[in-house]
Amino acid sequence: MSLTTGPLTGDALITKYISPATWALVQDKFSPFGKQTLIKVINFVEHECNPAEELYHAQVSTDPATRWKIVPEIVEQLKKKAKAQGLWNLFLSKKHYPDVGTPLTNLEYGMMAEIMGRGSHFTSESMNCSAPDTGNMEVFAKYGNQEQKDTWLRPLMNGEIRSAFAMTERFVASSDATNIRTSIRREGDEIVVNGHKWWISGAGDPRCAVHLVMGKSDPDNANTHKQQSLVIVPANAPGVKVIRPMQVFGYDDAPEGHCEVIYDNVRVPLKNLVLDWGRGFEIIQGRLGPGRIHHCMRSIGTAERALDLLLMRATDQRKKAFGKTLSEHGVIVQNVAWCRIKIDQARLLVLSAANMIDATNAKGALKDIAMSKVAVVKSALEVVDMAMQAHGAEGVCQDTPLASAWAGLRTLRYADGPDEVHLQQLGKLELRRAPELWDKANLRSAVSKKLMDKHGLKSHL
Amino acid sequence: MSLTTGPLTGDALITKYISPATWALVQDKFSPFGKQTLIKVINFVEHECNPAEELYHAQVSTDPATRWKIVPEIVEQLKKKAKAQGLWNLFLSKKHYPDVGTPLTNLEYGMMAEIMGRGSHFTSESMNCSAPDTGNMEVFAKYGNQEQKDTWLRPLMNGEIRSAFAMTERFVASSDATNIRTSIRREGDEIVVNGHKWWISGAGDPRCAVHLVMGKSDPDNANTHKQQSLVIVPANAPGVKVIRPMQVFGYDDAPEGHCEVIYDNVRVPLKNLVLDWGRGFEIIQGRLGPGRIHHCMRSIGTAERALDLLLMRATDQRKKAFGKTLSEHGVIVQNVAWCRIKIDQARLLVLSAANMIDATNAKGALKDIAMSKVAVVKSALEVVDMAMQAHGAEGVCQDTPLASAWAGLRTLRYADGPDEVHLQQLGKLELRRAPELWDKANLRSAVSKKLMDKHGLKSHL
Amino acid sequence: MSLTTGPLTGDALITKYISPATWALVQDKFSPFGKQTLIKVINFVEHECNPAEELYHAQVSTDPATRWKIVPEIVEQLKKKAKAQGLWNLFLSKKHYPDVGTPLTNLEYGMMAEIMGRGSHFTSESMNCSAPDTGNMEVFAKYGNQEQKDTWLRPLMNGEIRSAFAMTERFVASSDATNIRTSIRREGDEIVVNGHKWWISGAGDPRCAVHLVMGKSDPDNANTHKQQSLVIVPANAPGVKVIRPMQVFGYDDAPEGHCEVIYDNVRVPLKNLVLDWGRGFEIIQGRLGPGRIHHCMRSIGTAERALDLLLMRATDQRKKAFGKTLSEHGVIVQNVAWCRIKIDQARLLVLSAANMIDATNAKGALKDIAMSKVAVVKSALEVVDMAMQAHGAEGVCQDTPLASAWAGLRTLRYADGPDEVHLQQLGKLELRRAPELWDKANLRSAVSKKLMDKHGLKSHL
Amino acid sequence: MSLTTGPLTGDALITKYISPATWALVQDKFSPFGKQTLIKVINFVEHECNPAEELYHAQVSTDPATRWKIVPEIVEQLKKKAKAQGLWNLFLSKKHYPDVGTPLTNLEYGMMAEIMGRGSHFTSESMNCSAPDTGNMEVFAKYGNQEQKDTWLRPLMNGEIRSAFAMTERFVASSDATNIRTSIRREGDEIVVNGHKWWISGAGDPRCAVHLVMGKSDPDNANTHKQQSLVIVPANAPGVKVIRPMQVFGYDDAPEGHCEVIYDNVRVPLKNLVLDWGRGFEIIQGRLGPGRIHHCMRSIGTAERALDLLLMRATDQRKKAFGKTLSEHGVIVQNVAWCRIKIDQARLLVLSAANMIDATNAKGALKDIAMSKVAVVKSALEVVDMAMQAHGAEGVCQDTPLASAWAGLRTLRYADGPDEVHLQQLGKLELRRAPELWDKANLRSAVSKKLMDKHGLKSHL
Repeated sequence: MSLTTGPLTGDALITKYISPATWALVQDKFSPFGKQTLIKVINFVEHECNPAEELYHAQVSTDPATRWKIVPEIVEQLKKKAKAQGLWNLFLSKKHYPDVGTPLTNLEYGMMAEIMGRGSHFTSESMNCSAPDTGNMEVFAKYGNQEQKDTWLRPLMNGEIRSAFAMTERFVASSDATNIRTSIRREGDEIVVNGHKWWISGAGDPRCAVHLVMGKSDPDNANTHKQQSLVIVPANAPGVKVIRPMQVFGYDDAPEGHCEVIYDNVRVPLKNLVLDWGRGFEIIQGRLGPGRIHHCMRSIGTAERALDLLLMRATDQRKKAFGKTLSEHGVIVQNVAWCRIKIDQARLLVLSAANMIDATNAKGALKDIAMSKVAVVKSALEVVDMAMQAHGAEGVCQDTPLASAWAGLRTLRYADGPDEVHLQQLGKLELRRAPELWDKANLRSAVSKKLMDKHGLKSHL
Repeated sequence: MSLTTGPLTGDALITKYISPATWALVQDKFSPFGKQTLIKVINFVEHECNPAEELYHAQVSTDPATRWKIVPEIVEQLKKKAKAQGLWNLFLSKKHYPDVGTPLTNLEYGMMAEIMGRGSHFTSESMNCSAPDTGNMEVFAKYGNQEQKDTWLRPLMNGEIRSAFAMTERFVASSDATNIRTSIRREGDEIVVNGHKWWISGAGDPRCAVHLVMGKSDPDNANTHKQQSLVIVPANAPGVKVIRPMQVFGYDDAPEGHCEVIYDNVRVPLKNLVLDWGRGFEIIQGRLGPGRIHHCMRSIGTAERALDLLLMRATDQRKKAFGKTLSEHGVIVQNVAWCRIKIDQARLLVLSAANMIDATNAKGALKDIAMSKVAVVKSALEVVDMAMQAHGAEGVCQDTPLASAWAGLRTLRYADGPDEVHLQQLGKLELRRAPELWDKANLRSAVSKKLMDKHGLKSHL
Repeated sequence: MSLTTGPLTGDALITKYISPATWALVQDKFSPFGKQTLIKVINFVEHECNPAEELYHAQVSTDPATRWKIVPEIVEQLKKKAKAQGLWNLFLSKKHYPDVGTPLTNLEYGMMAEIMGRGSHFTSESMNCSAPDTGNMEVFAKYGNQEQKDTWLRPLMNGEIRSAFAMTERFVASSDATNIRTSIRREGDEIVVNGHKWWISGAGDPRCAVHLVMGKSDPDNANTHKQQSLVIVPANAPGVKVIRPMQVFGYDDAPEGHCEVIYDNVRVPLKNLVLDWGRGFEIIQGRLGPGRIHHCMRSIGTAERALDLLLMRATDQRKKAFGKTLSEHGVIVQNVAWCRIKIDQARLLVLSAANMIDATNAKGALKDIAMSKVAVVKSALEVVDMAMQAHGAEGVCQDTPLASAWAGLRTLRYADGPDEVHLQQLGKLELRRAPELWDKANLRSAVSKKLMDKHGLKSHL
Repeated sequence: MSLTTGPLTGDALITKYISPATWALVQDKFSPFGKQTLIKVINFVEHECNPAEELYHAQVSTDPATRWKIVPEIVEQLKKKAKAQGLWNLFLSKKHYPDVGTPLTNLEYGMMAEIMGRGSHFTSESMNCSAPDTGNMEVFAKYGNQEQKDTWLRPLMNGEIRSAFAMTERFVASSDATNIRTSIRREGDEIVVNGHKWWISGAGDPRCAVHLVMGKSDPDNANTHKQQSLVIVPANAPGVKVIRPMQVFGYDDAPEGHCEVIYDNVRVPLKNLVLDWGRGFEIIQGRLGPGRIHHCMRSIGTAERALDLLLMRATDQRKKAFGKTLSEHGVIVQNVAWCRIKIDQARLLVLSAANMIDATNAKGALKDIAMSKVAVVKSALEVVDMAMQAHGAEGVCQDTPLASAWAGLRTLRYADGPDEVHLQQLGKLELRRAPELWDKANLRSAVSKKLMDKHGLKSHL
């Protein structure tokens, strides 16, 4: 399974994936290791992952009896190859996780996430960089005690097990974390968990060994951000009931799935509490940030791949209509141009946010992360939609990655907070500039009026 | 299974489904029978079809072995009820099909199609008004000889069998009919069919008894619109190979499906030719027109239902975020307003096109049909998307009809000709007005210059 | 000054100005008088007004000393011609103003307003149908006493004088009428007016004889809608100070203008009060409604004219770029198609609102008027913008009517209430449907669950 | 005339004008001189230019007799101040013009151009950085001989005279340079120029001393890019007739103007030819590039200023409607957020293009310049439009800079080539990637099929 792209190496290879102007702007910020790793990721995705896509889908069982029990074996094969090349756990930045991390900045890993986004979702998994494991590993690395790290972080980092993060609940508006209803209460040496969650990604996977469950341990605490705790629940604990997989536009994303899960009087030992009582909210706050940037960069990779497919479809000699290839019609040329613009603007925005995280931290890049999340997903959806339209019926079916890419991107418009919430936050942050602007304008008007006076003119300000 | 909506009857009921202003504009054009039938359709959809939706989906088999062999029994039960009420084959207008048609205008049936569009796709089927059977019945009624009518039209109109229309081909740009590659050739008393089609809707259905197959019988004819013939192929003829169902996003729409089908040396008797050799293109031209209007009106029903769901979600007391229902946030109120505007504008456009067909014919309404197709689907997609976004994760899954509605609507942007082709046609028709405008403008300029002269002024025209 | 369009008469002429499908939908609602008048308006605009456009603009003085003192004489000439043809005060519907009105419905006059919108703004004035006189005449006709009618309504209806409506104030948010600060108080037999208004249309015109001034006579009234009164102020009353003309983009719309006006201790006799103390708000509520529809229809006429110009520019043989006329490029063809769609949808929406006013009244058409106002102006702006873009530099200058049309349309996005306010109102009205939808949905769910139960299936609702 | 913004200096000042994340991304590319100059430009614009805005407009004559003869004296005062601070001719990059240039990169000057764009158009002129003089100085510096430099470049660089560039012609599609009709022919020792131009910016200015006129000297040359020559025409040469100023949405931009000019048998000496016969096209090609980037950056400054005004209007306590400031309505907060996103994305795109010019040259940044031009102007127009809408009537009049800013931006959608042309070029450049993508995809499919084979599975590719 080898494929050569010819003599391209270094910058020449990289600028096949990122516009030369953007590369010119950011390349100084790449270390030699970062650049080398980026090139390795490009080659791994192009030559190992993408040619295995059809096989992956064929290896997912269509029999309901085994659909959630079999993992396509190609994934485990790819994981071995990636690990052997050092393409493993790249998301964990040494800066934030000195013990276990990889020496990559957010900007550097961002570009790698984009490349991963050019493949099917198992591409990230091949390099042990796929959600929700990534965020969960960060939680264990940052907040777990040694025993928790030994038990769960080590096998997760080795790619031996998978995990789930149980936050979203049915029947409430879960974009507001204070609405959580799952109960987490102490009974002697045990913690008892009762709750009804859904959209628990990965909970269907036969390798899923552990759920991190968010619930309320102190629902009457006046500080609504101290009511929650986070508890480690082994996937096979009695009372953990995976009810059904939720579908995203008809896709169930087996074998991982996004499941409805009921925790029915689940009992775990006290030591399964993460950090401390009442600190659940604090933990999830720390869990996001860079992760959103990675989502964004993957979305850009998805959009770039869609544009590649659009360019190919537009020049497909077999698919001439009315004697012309699509590319000979003016409208599609204009669409191609807009795709290029949308993608390049989106990438610049996310890279600047990633660099801002590196220069300060996730909090310092709050506005930039919010902007990226909203703008990038919108643009990526538009690009993928244009590519679908150019493909006609082929664009919405299983023969291209476009429809499932679109569906996945569409979920990002509400996942981790809906667009509307991010836009309100961003708008309000921006409005905080107003008092200073008023001061400046008042001073300016005063000077202006004085000037007008001096010239004997009447001001209308 | 009965449900009363209270005392609403007549106009009061109708104006729950169509804005009072639109109803005021078109009601004079409804006959008493048309109005009465519309009310019956409303009640049938609301009280019989929609409450059966969950059951329908539960009765579709998830076992690959039987998924394409079992028809949900609720459909056949609903068909009986509809037939008993006279809600049957309403799409066949008596005006165009005096022998077998129903005395409804396109405008009247259009409004009924909208109501059908408020239900799942089996709603139309319940009243024997679902594609592709509708178009196929029109073909048999208009172009079939008596034997063909007895054999195929009668059981189709009785809802005893179903049918497929095999036009689209893999590997070519099928929006241009001259690209068809399927071969239809005479050998003695037989017709031999060879071809590779896909997106053959209904071909997966166990009740599908017949395919109408378009192919080239005279590929070298200088008149590219005389190269094609249409032939009747029994679904069980040797050589008819249903390869796989195509998916729309992740939906396979079992048990009907949209299938890849290979016709491998299929032999049928000469009498299975429709109309005559070389008249296939002429037949498909006649097959469209009103059908597009019906698609559009169903899309509007879909959009109205999505708006209903959006209104409910926005006022859901259980789903307060940050202490407020969604409807207490200004942005969603604005979105609701735009949904209302988009739907009302879309409906007016289609109703005016339907009325134009009634006043002239499909050809006389060419521009109006093209406008409707492009504009309505775009608006409906936007409305459904807003409703999905308000629902968060719930909006893209199997628990609301939104995601599958969106996916279905999305296919209409290329089905029966992509938007781009319709817009080019429409734009070119409009540009034909230019010469007359130039004449008028030149006359006007001449007068203007004379006037300026008379007043001793210099014209800059 | 005569120009023949050839043999076109009746429907053939009308369907050059309104799509045949729309005409087919509404023509039954036109009386023979309405249809005949429409044809006369078309001919008057095309053959009398439009060829006089350049002359009109040339007759507006560019000398600051006379710019606001001279009325282009062509206007008074056209007024005579229009009056002679009975094309006079057509906006006053006999239904609402039995004594003085013309027997035209809102639907009928709406189409005439569209035709007027195809000309420069003096076109409406030529037929004595131009704002703000129209609304002011309605106020006098509906709320004025006999003396007021004799003094002001008669010469206004004769086109002898012009008028202004002084509502908007500087320094407050005037889209909320309760913010008005102008003081109107009684002193003996006199009313004293003090206030600072702006955007008083027509106040610059040498023929402007009267201002209707809205102010607060009872600012402490607990009912905020009883605080205002409306008073008649002769334009030449001492203390009426026209400060400066406001510009719209760079246009001052001389000689009428939109002026900043200070009422500085202006004294008028008691009899100049309209209706009664505290009824100002009630009067302005009655002043709107149909007027908004007329604005909308004029906007559609403006958009149609812009599309005409776009079609001509796209086919201009002198303006080939890269060897092709613009119309030979695919993108412009698509733009033309969208213009056609936008205009036809806009017109249908307004005509349905106009018809709803006829069928009920302005209150019965509240939603439809709001929808029209927001949607039509947006679409018209888009159409004019596309036409401008096709014209390049020529499109933004004084050589086409496009730029000034765009500027005028742009003001309609906030005039008579900004889009945002209309959308909020509309959205809230629509949200009132929610409780009924919830009831219906709950009933439906109950039936569905029963059905599932009966079949031994588990409902996920 | 001094105004302090308090203690802000250095980065703290700069990040009031450019988002901190963008500054973090590009600051390494600023030299100490560049950064220092940027700060000086900020202070000059804020404290000297903007408070003088009302005075400037008041000093423009409204009397037609003197409107094109008087230059507001404030401009010449500001020029002196700017020159004294070294804020002079900053646009001329030393890299490209080693003799006369300033040591600033395009990236550095780009940010300064943005700051200039925050002021009225005389702000650029104050620093001798305004079009069309900038482009003309580049032409003289690059292509002029010593005598031409002494005669014209020196006084232009000193700000003693102004200039015009006469390219666009009436009656032809001038976005295609081969359509030019102006004739430039040799007669003995003289060059005779005959032509009809319009939109000649600056030709109305009393200080305008020279026109650079493009015409055809060899109209039959088979190479359509060798037909043109460029000639220097003194503004006072006999036969140079400035016919009228063209308006942009009602603005005539006096005293500079955009004029219709007829060259009627104008005779100049042979030495007035620039470069050589037949090299006119080559010269204008070299004239663009960086200039477009500067236009873009100024547009961003305009958009930032509009957003400032929007933030102020949204929080204006005097302008509460229905008891709330605008900022307390959700919709405007969302609009503010989108403005922020649009501006930041626009700036990143242009800065990356500017940096690409620095890293390569204008040709190396071809795609990036085209992308910038189209995307930035679109975004800036949207931002200014949102700000106008928030201001209501105030937003379109002379009391804010918004309407004239919008009008100016609107012209950039066709100036230097309409959007459509840039998008076609960009799309075609992007489509050139297709063959390589096909090769890669074919290889990938081959590997995929082999993999499927190996596992006994059937590929559907």
